[in-house]
Amino acid sequence: MKILLVGANGTIGRIIASELKDRHQIISAGRTTGEVKVDISDSGSIAAMYEQVGPVDAVVCAAGEALTGPLVEMTRNDVLEGFNTKLLGQIDIVLQGFKYVSDNGSFTLTSGCTEREPVRNASSGSTINGALMGFVSAAAIEMPRGHRINVIGPGLLEVSADRYQNVFPGYIPVPSKHIALAYVRSIEGAITGRLISV
Amino acid sequence: MKILLVGANGTIGRIIASELKDRHQIISAGRTTGEVKVDISDSGSIAAMYEQVGPVDAVVCAAGEALTGPLVEMTRNDVLEGFNTKLLGQIDIVLQGFKYVSDNGSFTLTSGCTEREPVRNASSGSTINGALMGFVSAAAIEMPRGHRINVIGPGLLEVSADRYQNVFPGYIPVPSKHIALAYVRSIEGAITGRLISV
Repeated sequence: MKILLVGANGTIGRIIASELKDRHQIISAGRTTGEVKVDISDSGSIAAMYEQVGPVDAVVCAAGEALTGPLVEMTRNDVLEGFNTKLLGQIDIVLQGFKYVSDNGSFTLTSGCTEREPVRNASSGSTINGALMGFVSAAAIEMPRGHRINVIGPGLLEVSADRYQNVFPGYIPVPSKHIALAYVRSIEGAITGRLISV
Repeated sequence: MKILLVGANGTIGRIIASELKDRHQIISAGRTTGEVKVDISDSGSIAAMYEQVGPVDAVVCAAGEALTGPLVEMTRNDVLEGFNTKLLGQIDIVLQGFKYVSDNGSFTLTSGCTEREPVRNASSGSTINGALMGFVSAAAIEMPRGHRINVIGPGLLEVSADRYQNVFPGYIPVPSKHIALAYVRSIEGAITGRLISV
């Protein structure tokens, strides 16, 4: 398959690329690195990415950030601004991608785990994670030309556990191989409309 | 309890008011009707509502709309604009409400069912419903002064089943009493961080 991987140079992006590269053609995209440059906060930049890349069989997005901070200090504007990349950027990649993805191709997005297993200072990210689950669940029944869509919800990654263990106290770190396999299930499997919790 | 009910004149708002009015003091708020006028798409209007109402023991929101329409015609901007009332408006009611809600008081928001049981043309609403679930789940562990927060996820209402049965084919209509009891569980019960599916 020809697979467009947005966020290819991030922690999760590198795990995905390493798993898929031997049996698929990966086109890497990222804000500052990769074969294609894209800023997913900008609809025009996503359009330009697709024009440059052309037809693909699958699109995977492991890009986008969520704000962190105490709930009681959060404002409506913080929430709104937090939506820009990880929520609206990923949805936009789907909405603009239909015409580039081949029949029966797939979209795989990335959320997290905090909407199911919350931690402190993560209200904004949890809102985004829940939103992605809701979007994928509903979008799946309306996808054109046999397209599938899933979202991967990774927990605390083993590779970044040292850095984030205070944010996720008591979370069992997830091995990179398990993360990679979740994306394989979505891309090479047949399921759609699912949150794959890993 | 003194309960602020936003969206008091809507279909669900009237069901809630009718259940609660005999044992609580209800302050009704709405865009065009009610004791207090409020436009929840506007942060300033929410601030003015709270200033007018003052301290309360519980805030219930059954206001806000979601866009409907085919997934393949949706744009990033549609998604963003759709967030304005039902998602950002409800979150804003919580964020601005902390200082007005008494110790151990509660917030009860309203989502829907399509993020769990999707129907056609509901991607935008499903995204919002999922987001509200994620927000409530994470916010619950950071609420100040013993505040609780839940979201009610109503299915197809019996009272509007005639009008919406084509949108929700095969959905078992939910009696108004069941809807009302879900809000009672959140307001008078002790649970927090929960989606109450009804």
